[in-house]
Amino acid sequence: MYVKPRRPSGFQEYTPGEQIAFNRLLTIVRSIYEKYGFSPLDTPDIELTEVLLAGSGGETSKQVYRFKREGSDTDLTLRYDLTVPLARYIAEHQHELAFPFRRYQIGKVHRAERAQAGRFREFYQCDIDVIGSASSIVDAEFPVIINEIFEQFGFGEFVVRLNNRLILNGVFEGLGLAERSVEVLRIVDKIEKIPVEVFEAELRELGLSDEQVGRLQAFLSISGTNDEILAQLDGMSADMPESFNEGVRLLRAVVVALRQMSMPEHRFAIDLHIARGLDYYTGTVYETFLVDHPGLGSVCSGGRYDNLTKHYMNGDFPGVGISIGLSRLFYKLREVGAIEASSQSPAQVMVLPVSDSDDDVAYGIRVAAALRDSGLSVLLRADAGSVGKGLKYADKLGFVNVVLVGETERLANKVTLKNMTTGEAALVDVGDVSGVVGVGIGAGAQ
Amino acid sequence: MYVKPRRPSGFQEYTPGEQIAFNRLLTIVRSIYEKYGFSPLDTPDIELTEVLLAGSGGETSKQVYRFKREGSDTDLTLRYDLTVPLARYIAEHQHELAFPFRRYQIGKVHRAERAQAGRFREFYQCDIDVIGSASSIVDAEFPVIINEIFEQFGFGEFVVRLNNRLILNGVFEGLGLAERSVEVLRIVDKIEKIPVEVFEAELRELGLSDEQVGRLQAFLSISGTNDEILAQLDGMSADMPESFNEGVRLLRAVVVALRQMSMPEHRFAIDLHIARGLDYYTGTVYETFLVDHPGLGSVCSGGRYDNLTKHYMNGDFPGVGISIGLSRLFYKLREVGAIEASSQSPAQVMVLPVSDSDDDVAYGIRVAAALRDSGLSVLLRADAGSVGKGLKYADKLGFVNVVLVGETERLANKVTLKNMTTGEAALVDVGDVSGVVGVGIGAGAQ
Repeated sequence: MYVKPRRPSGFQEYTPGEQIAFNRLLTIVRSIYEKYGFSPLDTPDIELTEVLLAGSGGETSKQVYRFKREGSDTDLTLRYDLTVPLARYIAEHQHELAFPFRRYQIGKVHRAERAQAGRFREFYQCDIDVIGSASSIVDAEFPVIINEIFEQFGFGEFVVRLNNRLILNGVFEGLGLAERSVEVLRIVDKIEKIPVEVFEAELRELGLSDEQVGRLQAFLSISGTNDEILAQLDGMSADMPESFNEGVRLLRAVVVALRQMSMPEHRFAIDLHIARGLDYYTGTVYETFLVDHPGLGSVCSGGRYDNLTKHYMNGDFPGVGISIGLSRLFYKLREVGAIEASSQSPAQVMVLPVSDSDDDVAYGIRVAAALRDSGLSVLLRADAGSVGKGLKYADKLGFVNVVLVGETERLANKVTLKNMTTGEAALVDVGDVSGVVGVGIGAGAQ
Repeated sequence: MYVKPRRPSGFQEYTPGEQIAFNRLLTIVRSIYEKYGFSPLDTPDIELTEVLLAGSGGETSKQVYRFKREGSDTDLTLRYDLTVPLARYIAEHQHELAFPFRRYQIGKVHRAERAQAGRFREFYQCDIDVIGSASSIVDAEFPVIINEIFEQFGFGEFVVRLNNRLILNGVFEGLGLAERSVEVLRIVDKIEKIPVEVFEAELRELGLSDEQVGRLQAFLSISGTNDEILAQLDGMSADMPESFNEGVRLLRAVVVALRQMSMPEHRFAIDLHIARGLDYYTGTVYETFLVDHPGLGSVCSGGRYDNLTKHYMNGDFPGVGISIGLSRLFYKLREVGAIEASSQSPAQVMVLPVSDSDDDVAYGIRVAAALRDSGLSVLLRADAGSVGKGLKYADKLGFVNVVLVGETERLANKVTLKNMTTGEAALVDVGDVSGVVGVGIGAGAQ
């Protein structure tokens, strides 16, 4: 008779306290994206399959929610990222836009991946991209934005790791490996996860000579401070092809701009290993690591890419961008206790009439309105029931501050402000409540 | 070779300036929902069909996006409203929640309706509901919330029309029409759209006697101020069944509470015609009309209903709620010019170095950072090009304020603040810019 209430596997949802904590992160991301002049964009959840998968290989098309409605021939697919819809948007609306086009998009995407802990089939991505600018200053803005966001997140120290794909390409070219760069990159990508002997063996299997393996290892072992790494790269310049030197020049330009932007030196580090996939990125690349949670891998990645809209039109729209996978980050940090659920209500104070009498309730209504006028978010408890029941409700919702109103308060034109944590209560003026509670609408959820 | 960039029919998206204007409305709704102590909720876009359509008749199931992925037997459906997911959520998580449960949800829903102007297949709903409270004070909070939201929207005057379904039910019962109430309601629902003769004829066709038609018309013609209507309803009380009098009692309680909440008298009106559908609502019902745009019909509706979770569990979760269909409202008001697109950037000021020299660009970077520190949202124009090109870009994006920085400004440690509307420009301290531009991050988009 009843249908069991449940969700499809891989689809999460939060308790109100978790949702408020998650929304706090969303609000930080949104406000900082806007602070840097990115315009909001919101594309449909559903796209035409022919358009969405125009440039996709087999792997992507296996992982999407693709369907036709019964009785309809239209082949539809739910978006699986926010980049392809951006490309489609720009190609469709280019004449309505001003370039460079700076946009942010925060929204859900869907992937029909095998469900497992921390892997969801529906999750939020928070993307920013600048389309139509070649400036290294723009490349430098992304680590600065990441820095500001993660500082406000408060998940401890973090480092944005930087590289430029031209440098790796130049090394491969210098070693005569340009045509095998995809295979070599695949091995370089896992250098930190496999023993050095395995690394060497795999490269030799590809047909690399001892000398090639040795020179590649020598390059990949370059380390030190940002300036030390740049100096070592400069030292190699004479033997290297132009693409290598161009990559070094661009990487240095980003480092210079980062310092001009007052990016803290310990928050960014050149890392010559970072490649970010095989084909997509063509210049600066970024990854972000939480120092206290290395197991999460990169929590915010991106880079510079060539013509975004190539499947849709003839045109030249290079871009650079980053994405934060907020759902996974939230899940992983909840799991290790680094994120606590908030109280279950965004309200800062609950108003609780101590009786059902018309006079007490009417006074409670007036007090709630006055507190809202003073800038507070207020939950008015208007249901019949004892004070004890009302306080229990406040406690369950996680309220710290409860305003009690009854005859005493009404006749004195005051309220009793009770702190649920300390148990202390005091008769105060309505106008004094916001000073104690702290002004700011919906502080819990902002 | 190229795939034409396009969307499925019935799926809209905005220009950046429209998106900023739309987001301004979303932010108003969200902040006021939170100000009244509603907790955020975000359920999956996709539900199991068996669960989502558990209580749905044939009409709903024809209008949904229902599908199975290739190679999967799981029958899925995109949510078509935010009420059924709320019911499923409460049934699934009841032990984690405190009741009354006050939640808001703002999100997209999908309906495969016939596409036509102003009807979309993907649109935003903005819902609030209180589950598990029978209080008339709670019923009265909704018009107050609507009042605050639509005041901030600024679409001119509006009226929240109120009724209680028990009153209509009581009238039908008193006329011996209780068993034909659904059919009679269907005719009453269109009373304002059809001539009186058609109205009478349709009722007679249903088998109503002249006396029944006359008494129904007499009831429906009751009008006047809120107090005059209540007085006329009181006058009928002796001849009416208990449900009628209970409805009048509840309606009066809401009116009394609305006045205690300082709801402006001209913003709410008892309207005995309002029924809001045939079965769903069981108590207070609301509709909201824009005085200057009557053609839109109700722009925010809702009411009180019985057990929300009846398809999922044995339990008692009565509720009351409202929904704003923000996408349709936005579309219709854009169409008649009542909503203007915003500027295309959420930034309040653009910083424009007047040359590509390292010194000018570095100074521009410092100025942009200082302005952001002062609370402004700033777009730094870092691309090579003439000042004229930079100003054209600022103009296209709709910036009113542009900060120009070059050698003169750098040596004076000042900036040139140019007003794009008046053409005026003045050399000012960096610290004075926010005073002219107005503080508040992302004011354009908030």
